[in-house]
Amino acid sequence: MKILLTNDDGLQAPGINRLYQVLKEKHTVYTVAPEKEMSATGHAITLHKPLRVKEVELEAGVARAVNGTPSDCVKLALEAILPSPPDLVISGINSGPNLGNDVFYSGTVSAAVEGFFLGYPSLAVSLVLEGEFRDFSFGAYYINELLAKHGSKILEEKYLLNINFPPRPAEQIQGTKITKLSRRNYANVFDQRVDPRGQKYYWMTGSIEEMDEKDSDTMAIREGYVSITPLCVDLTSHEEIPELKKLNW
Amino acid sequence: MKILLTNDDGLQAPGINRLYQVLKEKHTVYTVAPEKEMSATGHAITLHKPLRVKEVELEAGVARAVNGTPSDCVKLALEAILPSPPDLVISGINSGPNLGNDVFYSGTVSAAVEGFFLGYPSLAVSLVLEGEFRDFSFGAYYINELLAKHGSKILEEKYLLNINFPPRPAEQIQGTKITKLSRRNYANVFDQRVDPRGQKYYWMTGSIEEMDEKDSDTMAIREGYVSITPLCVDLTSHEEIPELKKLNW
Repeated sequence: MKILLTNDDGLQAPGINRLYQVLKEKHTVYTVAPEKEMSATGHAITLHKPLRVKEVELEAGVARAVNGTPSDCVKLALEAILPSPPDLVISGINSGPNLGNDVFYSGTVSAAVEGFFLGYPSLAVSLVLEGEFRDFSFGAYYINELLAKHGSKILEEKYLLNINFPPRPAEQIQGTKITKLSRRNYANVFDQRVDPRGQKYYWMTGSIEEMDEKDSDTMAIREGYVSITPLCVDLTSHEEIPELKKLNW
Repeated sequence: MKILLTNDDGLQAPGINRLYQVLKEKHTVYTVAPEKEMSATGHAITLHKPLRVKEVELEAGVARAVNGTPSDCVKLALEAILPSPPDLVISGINSGPNLGNDVFYSGTVSAAVEGFFLGYPSLAVSLVLEGEFRDFSFGAYYINELLAKHGSKILEEKYLLNINFPPRPAEQIQGTKITKLSRRNYANVFDQRVDPRGQKYYWMTGSIEEMDEKDSDTMAIREGYVSITPLCVDLTSHEEIPELKKLNW
């Protein structure tokens, strides 16, 4: 398979490097990723400055670094850089979860959505972190296996999948669950402080208030499963249309 | 009504000022918006630097400027700044359209989505621009009328509505259509150039390839109607779940 690989943690991040190392054994992998960390950029794109592309030597091979967002990387790769169209876009492996409605803030997921907009099946891949746990190997091998087992189905159905790995070593993973996105609310979102000149400022912070939703991605992760959620990109609330049409505008 | 007003063009933009002027006659309006333009920021949030809030005198009254994105403004207003919760969040009036899948890139829509996440009915409001046309007055009065006529319904149903005005003077507006989001594709997305030092760079550009989709927001605008699309925030593709569950994971 020809794979476009990107992320939002930047080209030097361990997750994308581990995935690149594993995937390149069987696949042609084009890595085009932000030159620096771009977490929480949502689906931002760069309109007001020019984008530049640099070739960079990584441990796993040669990659391209872009001075933009994850969505910029995918657009640029697919529309201007790659020698030929890939079969699949993969974004990750992200350092940290992309679960529930947090996918709206996620550069990782936005890169996959961008690939999907441009006509490609796409995977967003994230590893939930906990304590000292930072092992991207299980995730990388899982994606490799996934492509071997279900790659043709993913291409045929043109899936857009959001995949999260629980913060556990391989032998403690319980299996895989197909899930829906959960609702994640945050409490105490801002930490208000005063600077040395007496001016107030705010750090965004907050603790997650998770709800125990059956079949949700958050629940699957908590129980030690790999979570796979199929995503769609139509934000229209179709069921509200008939009621709204009845109103006198 | 108590209204939180924000935008992505920044506090000095004509759209938010015109809307503020009109709404403040009947409502209590808290304006909290980015201190500078934040277009195409998607749903970006600011985690790596502190946010600051400044009081600013505008033509229409006192407002608060934030050194962050539209989503930052809404989070900060609702979780830290406002003296009491508003009834409604309004984002706009944006200079330019927010139609179809472009809503994913839109700071204007993301601000409304953020309000909705935090439990409030929300409106994203945009004016399509064409040639010299820059008149936000019709849009501002339309929103004022909308609140008078359907405000209680919007609050009760907790709607999240994406509203676009066509680039026409009031007397040429054909009416209002309840629409679905269209698919918008772009052709020739990058303009590749070479700088004086012989290095390639890319400007993001591209011309829209619109499809004539029945009942879509893009069609309504083209025909001279105000377009109102109800949005949802669940990106789960529920109908793909059964098929995926059948696979051997």
